[in-house]
Amino acid sequence: MNTPLKKIILVGGATLLPATAFAQDAPTAVPTEVGFILTTLLFLIAGFLVFFMAAGFAMLEAGLVRSKNVTMQLTKNMGLFGFACLAYYIIGFNLMYPADAWTISNILGAFSPTSLEPVGLAAADADLSYASVGSDFFFQLMFCAATASIVSGALAERIKLWPFLVFVIILTGLIYPIQASWKWGGGFLEVANFQDFAGSTVVHSVGGWAALTGAIILGPRIGKYKDGKVTPFLGSNLPLATLGAFILWLGWFGFNGGSQLAMGTVGDIADISRIFVNTNAAAAGGVVAALIATQLLYKKPDLTMILNGALAGLVSITAEPLTPSIGMATLIGAVGGIIVVITIPLLDKFRIDDVVGAIPVHLIAGIWGTIAVVFTNPAATIGAQLFGILTVAFFVIITSSLVWLILKVIVGIRVDEEAEIMGLDRSELGMEAYPEFKTN
Amino acid sequence: MNTPLKKIILVGGATLLPATAFAQDAPTAVPTEVGFILTTLLFLIAGFLVFFMAAGFAMLEAGLVRSKNVTMQLTKNMGLFGFACLAYYIIGFNLMYPADAWTISNILGAFSPTSLEPVGLAAADADLSYASVGSDFFFQLMFCAATASIVSGALAERIKLWPFLVFVIILTGLIYPIQASWKWGGGFLEVANFQDFAGSTVVHSVGGWAALTGAIILGPRIGKYKDGKVTPFLGSNLPLATLGAFILWLGWFGFNGGSQLAMGTVGDIADISRIFVNTNAAAAGGVVAALIATQLLYKKPDLTMILNGALAGLVSITAEPLTPSIGMATLIGAVGGIIVVITIPLLDKFRIDDVVGAIPVHLIAGIWGTIAVVFTNPAATIGAQLFGILTVAFFVIITSSLVWLILKVIVGIRVDEEAEIMGLDRSELGMEAYPEFKTN
Amino acid sequence: MNTPLKKIILVGGATLLPATAFAQDAPTAVPTEVGFILTTLLFLIAGFLVFFMAAGFAMLEAGLVRSKNVTMQLTKNMGLFGFACLAYYIIGFNLMYPADAWTISNILGAFSPTSLEPVGLAAADADLSYASVGSDFFFQLMFCAATASIVSGALAERIKLWPFLVFVIILTGLIYPIQASWKWGGGFLEVANFQDFAGSTVVHSVGGWAALTGAIILGPRIGKYKDGKVTPFLGSNLPLATLGAFILWLGWFGFNGGSQLAMGTVGDIADISRIFVNTNAAAAGGVVAALIATQLLYKKPDLTMILNGALAGLVSITAEPLTPSIGMATLIGAVGGIIVVITIPLLDKFRIDDVVGAIPVHLIAGIWGTIAVVFTNPAATIGAQLFGILTVAFFVIITSSLVWLILKVIVGIRVDEEAEIMGLDRSELGMEAYPEFKTN
Repeated sequence: MNTPLKKIILVGGATLLPATAFAQDAPTAVPTEVGFILTTLLFLIAGFLVFFMAAGFAMLEAGLVRSKNVTMQLTKNMGLFGFACLAYYIIGFNLMYPADAWTISNILGAFSPTSLEPVGLAAADADLSYASVGSDFFFQLMFCAATASIVSGALAERIKLWPFLVFVIILTGLIYPIQASWKWGGGFLEVANFQDFAGSTVVHSVGGWAALTGAIILGPRIGKYKDGKVTPFLGSNLPLATLGAFILWLGWFGFNGGSQLAMGTVGDIADISRIFVNTNAAAAGGVVAALIATQLLYKKPDLTMILNGALAGLVSITAEPLTPSIGMATLIGAVGGIIVVITIPLLDKFRIDDVVGAIPVHLIAGIWGTIAVVFTNPAATIGAQLFGILTVAFFVIITSSLVWLILKVIVGIRVDEEAEIMGLDRSELGMEAYPEFKTN
Repeated sequence: MNTPLKKIILVGGATLLPATAFAQDAPTAVPTEVGFILTTLLFLIAGFLVFFMAAGFAMLEAGLVRSKNVTMQLTKNMGLFGFACLAYYIIGFNLMYPADAWTISNILGAFSPTSLEPVGLAAADADLSYASVGSDFFFQLMFCAATASIVSGALAERIKLWPFLVFVIILTGLIYPIQASWKWGGGFLEVANFQDFAGSTVVHSVGGWAALTGAIILGPRIGKYKDGKVTPFLGSNLPLATLGAFILWLGWFGFNGGSQLAMGTVGDIADISRIFVNTNAAAAGGVVAALIATQLLYKKPDLTMILNGALAGLVSITAEPLTPSIGMATLIGAVGGIIVVITIPLLDKFRIDDVVGAIPVHLIAGIWGTIAVVFTNPAATIGAQLFGILTVAFFVIITSSLVWLILKVIVGIRVDEEAEIMGLDRSELGMEAYPEFKTN
Repeated sequence: MNTPLKKIILVGGATLLPATAFAQDAPTAVPTEVGFILTTLLFLIAGFLVFFMAAGFAMLEAGLVRSKNVTMQLTKNMGLFGFACLAYYIIGFNLMYPADAWTISNILGAFSPTSLEPVGLAAADADLSYASVGSDFFFQLMFCAATASIVSGALAERIKLWPFLVFVIILTGLIYPIQASWKWGGGFLEVANFQDFAGSTVVHSVGGWAALTGAIILGPRIGKYKDGKVTPFLGSNLPLATLGAFILWLGWFGFNGGSQLAMGTVGDIADISRIFVNTNAAAAGGVVAALIATQLLYKKPDLTMILNGALAGLVSITAEPLTPSIGMATLIGAVGGIIVVITIPLLDKFRIDDVVGAIPVHLIAGIWGTIAVVFTNPAATIGAQLFGILTVAFFVIITSSLVWLILKVIVGIRVDEEAEIMGLDRSELGMEAYPEFKTN
């Protein structure tokens, strides 16, 4: 039918009205059990959308690395997701929400695996003001895994598989949940009025900082920076990378929309609608900005910049997808797109080799997005935003550097030169991604 | 458990009953706030499914063009979506729903950007009989963007990027919303009893007409029609094209299902179920018909025809996915599949070069679907259907031809011969989609 | 916002409470009409997720066959889905649920096409304790189609298209629905207390047995087993296979979650949450187990084993995704992952050529999952589980062998040697999947 009824009614068109809408005996308010069901459903839907982002990252990265490293990149993405699920289940989730109060004993005693509510949970035993524990865990787990996915792209084509996976376990079991608890577990960043709706800082910058420290400690790929010149290493499969970007865009509706954390009221669902619209607008802003910027700067639009522009737009709006108008959301995303175009070459200046552009997209646009909250959310202050950004930065830089360095000393984190030149697929895995296709 | 309870109950099997279903004190009717939440949720879910169709179009088209034009096709698909979001936000949406009444001043005064409801919308201020404005905008925006995606496939491998994007802006900001307002905005086609549930005409034929005029004005690809013979240009990546078709099929559940525009009653959700079943049946009908038809006609099944058969089945059922029985839906879709098999070679006869088969799928099957409404929906008349089809055809042919011709005269819409032969990826973008793979 | 409110409240943070949650006049229980809407919605969402598994199977299989057979594999996957929809609509669904009672006349008289509820179903006429017939059919159809998808992978690269499609029609119209009725239609396996929540046996082992009999009767691919040695035939496109695995993982949330068959109570939605979490945990367990096992056994992680490990984990938890703890679910999935690593080479010992590993994943892990129910579900007995496994095995082995043999005798099921060596794409379809890429 596709005719907004409310408008047709006024024209006098003969259209069926929804039966209950004007039924005189219908109650109006939302029963509390229905609210619980709806919010839980929100987490499940948003959760499977964010889950699918794992596929998005895998495709984006597999498309942007050279063909000789594709199988390894896929293996890392599947492996990191598996280990992230384990680590977050065994300690991460409870560490992130330190019991019912922020006392020292709770925080220290929070090292316990997640347990679910009983089968067939009775309404009387449920906290009907929120959602089921299982759905909450499912949703939060996917955020944690996304943080790890961010890291894998930046360090591609040279890092060893197992040290990377060990880092992932520590990141998802400890580093991510601890800093996330400061904001989302009701810790000191929450108390300090730090605003980060869906995680420009708590998720994206954390992945970004871990990627940055890793990229610096690992060093650039052989041949990337030679004689003061930057050699571009081209992505081997751009349709795959584009598919990855579209999947991530799709997943982001769950990422930001689910972060409303409630769907049981008219206000909540209207807010989720705002969030969907603004999330989409910011991505579109990033696309258009990167498209125009690369046209102006390089005379030719650059698809990989455009894809990263979309993602940077999404990261930029993640700290506050609710309060902006559509226009502001578009603008915030567009600045994200510009950031990508400017900072990707800048990293190369510093000889920081980020294979897929994860650091500009997730870290720098993440910082921008966190700051941009002050433009639309009156509750935010620039002081609190900077405090949050810097605190998280400090913590993640220190801890992840430490982990990378310990791994480097003990087992080594980088494949040897011969293996890197041959490609990780043949040298480390003995399995090529496209074994039949002749390559240059 | 997977055992339909209603059936088991009668067998006497010991199965848990849902607790509240028979609770004596439970109310029965749907509270109005719950209805609002559910309809809004429908738009959000359907909206993200239709969003994903953008990825489906991108993959379908990237798989069906030659490898030398893949990056450009991906760039066009990402770019068109970005600009469509902008144009529909800035003028399209309000233009499509001219305020509260169809007066001249409203129509002319409708050139304004979309604004959302306030954060934390109170139930008292919401129109509880429908859904949130944000969700409505989100859903309708995705339809508008899909219209533009239809065009990009037909004109692939020879059109310039920027003129194409300018056309997209005019299509999504003006042409699409104006004609859509005639039906879905309560305009004269709605008054004239023209039936088009989810847009066989309003969306698909519009994209189809714009593609047809573009293809004619642009002319065929070099070498396609030579010495009275048609040279087949093979798609470079059929798994990608197949993935695209599957994603489009998935997205269509949102496209048609969401067009019920209400989910707050038993009748509405049962109708949405009918729509899902019929949408799927029509696609299956299209697959089977195209498979059998190509086997009979060419002695060999043709995968690209089968994929287009599925899509033509989906387009065919889009004008009326609710009233048919499953059998009729299958049949309507099957005719769509046959249409594809017959009309794709026919277009070549007229030397109209449609790279991916968009015109048969979206335009011809769209017309068929709009006519087929009269077979199952007693409210439809063949007169009103033809009136709708022809009115929209007339408007879109005129306006889009005009835009194409103006663009052709002012900036030119076609890349030069050398660039086309070299491939748009290298000549226009300097970036290949599969830089490492050796091609013939 | 992303701060679980219930926790923040206790810290005293100033956070908005959901308006209705504590509203004093709000009713608490779920109105029966809302329950109907929610359960129907569950089927629709779960159904489109399971639908998408068709794309997952197609991509997995297209990625794991050699490039010369990719178009054929895609054609089979599209075709089987189309025919499965027809067969299940025309006889399968009603055969699976023999009317309202299990009498001989009902069973024999069940050969009738599915019909839907009337448009605009009135609440008074609906069975408000369950869901709309359309949504139920939609959901169940996707299960039936998945069963057929399982078969296509194992028999790839040598089976003829049309005999395969005829087998699919019989499998989805008769074999699958008949045995499914024994459990899910309230038949003797349900009465015998056989537990199979979402179909480790009813779906996956059925596809597995049909694949096994087919693989044996069809024989191995030319050159696979020569002079007592196994020649590995490498998958042509591992990113595609990985994408397929991720899509299947995504779809499984619908597969298992939807099998709760109810979403109208707090207990049901909390159970669905448990199922989502456990389904995910089992897949993660399968990934990690296969990753570690291949590292230990072969000194190199094997991506295709890891992908199949994820899928085996998913199949393993499918018989009982509700009762396990997260830890148990992870363990059950991990055993599935180990099964894959062990049994894939084992099949080669018996010269059973299963191209994509469908038999280990769907049959052997399916049996394991069905047995594993007894570890967590107190209602299950090992006797009943084995009874169910063996009964279904017996039925499907007999019937599918018969169909394969009849097809073999009458029309032949295998392409000739020359065609197989040339590749099915060129010999049978005249259309290559990657026509431009040079292959070895």
